[in-house]
Amino acid sequence: MRIKIEEIEGLLRQAFKKRGVEDYEVLIDHFIEAELRGHSSHGLQRVIPLLKGLDLGTIKPRIGFEVIKESKNSLLIDAKHSIGITLWNRLISREFNEPIYLLAVRNASHIGFLGYYTSKLTERGLVSIMFGNAEVGIVKPGTAKQVVSTAPISVGIPPNYVLDMSLASTSRGKILQALRKGEKIPKGVAVNEKGIITEDPAEALKGGILPIGGFKGFLLALTLDLLTAYLTGSAISDEVTGVLHTENPPNKGEVMIIINPSFFAINSYALEKMRKIIEFPGEHGMKLREKKLEEGYIEVDEKLWEELNKCEKLCV
Amino acid sequence: MRIKIEEIEGLLRQAFKKRGVEDYEVLIDHFIEAELRGHSSHGLQRVIPLLKGLDLGTIKPRIGFEVIKESKNSLLIDAKHSIGITLWNRLISREFNEPIYLLAVRNASHIGFLGYYTSKLTERGLVSIMFGNAEVGIVKPGTAKQVVSTAPISVGIPPNYVLDMSLASTSRGKILQALRKGEKIPKGVAVNEKGIITEDPAEALKGGILPIGGFKGFLLALTLDLLTAYLTGSAISDEVTGVLHTENPPNKGEVMIIINPSFFAINSYALEKMRKIIEFPGEHGMKLREKKLEEGYIEVDEKLWEELNKCEKLCV
Repeated sequence: MRIKIEEIEGLLRQAFKKRGVEDYEVLIDHFIEAELRGHSSHGLQRVIPLLKGLDLGTIKPRIGFEVIKESKNSLLIDAKHSIGITLWNRLISREFNEPIYLLAVRNASHIGFLGYYTSKLTERGLVSIMFGNAEVGIVKPGTAKQVVSTAPISVGIPPNYVLDMSLASTSRGKILQALRKGEKIPKGVAVNEKGIITEDPAEALKGGILPIGGFKGFLLALTLDLLTAYLTGSAISDEVTGVLHTENPPNKGEVMIIINPSFFAINSYALEKMRKIIEFPGEHGMKLREKKLEEGYIEVDEKLWEELNKCEKLCV
Repeated sequence: MRIKIEEIEGLLRQAFKKRGVEDYEVLIDHFIEAELRGHSSHGLQRVIPLLKGLDLGTIKPRIGFEVIKESKNSLLIDAKHSIGITLWNRLISREFNEPIYLLAVRNASHIGFLGYYTSKLTERGLVSIMFGNAEVGIVKPGTAKQVVSTAPISVGIPPNYVLDMSLASTSRGKILQALRKGEKIPKGVAVNEKGIITEDPAEALKGGILPIGGFKGFLLALTLDLLTAYLTGSAISDEVTGVLHTENPPNKGEVMIIINPSFFAINSYALEKMRKIIEFPGEHGMKLREKKLEEGYIEVDEKLWEELNKCEKLCV
């Protein structure tokens, strides 16, 4: 069903205000932006577990964190189960006048889509590389054992390049969608419970998702998971909890490298040249965004909207 | 044919000494290490174009470079066609006591395999991320137009994790090998001149190599190429020259991020846990290395050995 953006914003505002959420306008902006840019997997459906976590107390409404280590160009934070989106938004709002920074956060809850942060930095003329771990989603190739996260990664290069993707070859959401529609899933994106490639969505749900690019893609995902855990002190692999199932407090991590290009070459020609060869990632989403903003409506699943309305007051 | 390691070292020493190459023992070590670890694509066969470039004057034997910009934790260098291997080896020999550094180099010649540098830093307890661009090798999916490099990337995490791979799903060397042996190439690694996937190595040579992971892998390769060019000021895409064909001076770039983990969490447990689940990348190569070192011999293609001997004095 089509719902007025203002109406959605109103609902979210009520829900977050009631729970004493700090910087709640950022949360509203984040979830609406996800829907507008076509990342509905990071949109309104993620509001439910967030509200649930807030109601259960596994997620903290205020941006409270402990600085573990800090220097002029490094920061290691324990987010103490604050909301990842508002915390990270505040972290990237700082000034970045040094050549390069590393921000490492552990134990933040839902951070949403990484392109939200990298695109804001890109607009400010800064290069950024962001990745993080999460609950396991990708199997070790040849097995049905889920051992690494879907390994999200985002890279922003000014003035207009924003990569925002995961290293998974499909999402659980797409497999569920195929099941509902009675369709097959593409060959090579998931395995059954024996670790053998399957096109049957029901079997895939008992198995697991494959990384992009076979073993090389698996190693890339493993590398990002390890880098995150090593630098942030987060949990790793099957020990990560609290991301999708907010009955437990979150114990994952995120890393962001921010580069001030004024200390480097700023070769804008390279971007201009490549833009002539290929459409940049995210461009399609931004076009969708313009269209939807103009119309003033967002398409929301009926059941989800019902649940959101029910959850507005209490979500446990 | 099997050749004594000392004999190979002797030949290389002669060749580099004659050409007045600075720090030539590093070059010898690099090429021998590549062979020992099983990366023969970065081994002795790459000595020929290097010697050719030195004889033609497109590559400079001494480590001469211009510092374009420099700060306590950033460095932008124009390598002025110095040898990439000796230059980068010298750069990473510095002390890294700040939390994070970015080293950006353009116009260096052959740098070999990136794991050489990241593994050295890993042994010193430092995290490193290295990538660079090169002559185009990967096609835009759906076409036969080569637009991005094979996008090498290496990541080192202490004490023992070293990823060293490219985002190409195969190498030109492997396609040539299949052609020689009259074998097919795997489906999905290369396209013919119309941009259609082919298993025929002869057709693949007229087309191009596919990235790992389809369009996502292509975007990752594009991102690394863009990051490199943007930060270093190197050339990009089909404008990169001098890497394989050293008739032209090199104009590519490399980026290295070095992280001192003492400013962060140093979660070694994460590595120990994952090591129990999966063998780390590079481990197999290191086992091969031990075995070959013990034997004291390296397997060298007969024609290559002949060419090396011929090139020792003059290679044009």
